[in-house]
Formats: sequence, structure tokens, C-alpha cells
Amino acid sequence: MASAMTVIEIRIELKKGVADPEGKNTQKTLESLGFGGISAVRTVKLFEVEVDAPADEALKQGEEMCRKLLANPVIQNFRVTVR
Amino acid sequence: MASAMTVIEIRIELKKGVADPEGKNTQKTLESLGFGGISAVRTVKLFEVEVDAPADEALKQGEEMCRKLLANPVIQNFRVTVR
Repeated sequence: MASAMTVIEIRIELKKGVADPEGKNTQKTLESLGFGGISAVRTVKLFEVEVDAPADEALKQGEEMCRKLLANPVIQNFRVTVR
Repeated sequence: MASAMTVIEIRIELKKGVADPEGKNTQKTLESLGFGGISAVRTVKLFEVEVDAPADEALKQGEEMCRKLLANPVIQNFRVTVR
């Protein structure tokens, strides 16, 4: 049996319209440090997961991980890609 | 004067060898939920920043933001890309 190691990247971001206080505060602090012309700062949560599975199966597992644990479907969207 | 809006992505990850307790705990919890064959979970911090500047200048600003505020050079590496 062949074994494959796949690194998947799970990207979890807030849905449109959901408040992102960390992003807002980061923006304010950057502005107070003199950075101009910033119209938005958004925070994204990223997990890199090494899975002992081929790419297609690893992707499916990653989506299942989001549904079961990592993402909150009320306020977050997720996207799983192979790195 | 032409104006350009650039969205940069600032990716901040822990240096090799630095403990990632959030990643470790996420891995344990995934395993307790029945996910097998996971050899590592790493957490990455991502900021999406909309800057009113052309791409090359926005990239430079993003790197400066990391040096001045967002990243801790003792334990973190950063990478800035245009999205």
C-alpha cells in the first residue's frame, strides 16, 4: 500500500458583515504608528495540517475538520486547499 | 494622479522549533474526534490589509507593518504577498 503525506491549508475567515474587532484595532494601531491609506484590515485564521492521506482524501478530511471543530458556520467561512 | 488599491496578505508563522500549543491542542482534539493520521497542526496568523498604494509600495509597507507591530522577530517569520 502506498502512503502519501499531504499538507492542507485550512483558511477560516469571518463572513461579510461580521465584526472583526481585532482587525479594526490593528488598523487603528497601524494608523497611530503613521501608516496611511489603510482602508481595511481583516484577520484570518489559518491552520496547516499534515495528513497521512492522498490529496483528495486530505481535502475531504479538512472540510470535515472545519464542520466538526474548527469553524463556526454562523460567522465564518472556510476554504481548504492543498499546499 | 492615479490611485491604486492593493490588497496585501501578511502571513505570520512561528519559526521552526518554537512551541505551538494551539496547534498541538487542535491536533489532540481532532484526534479525539476520530481524525487519524495527522502528523502536525500548525497555526498561522493572517492579516488582509487594503492599502491605497500600488503593489510594490504596498508590499514594502506590509513588511514595515510586520517589523513595527505585527510580528515578533524572536519567534515569528513573516511573508507579505499581493492578493
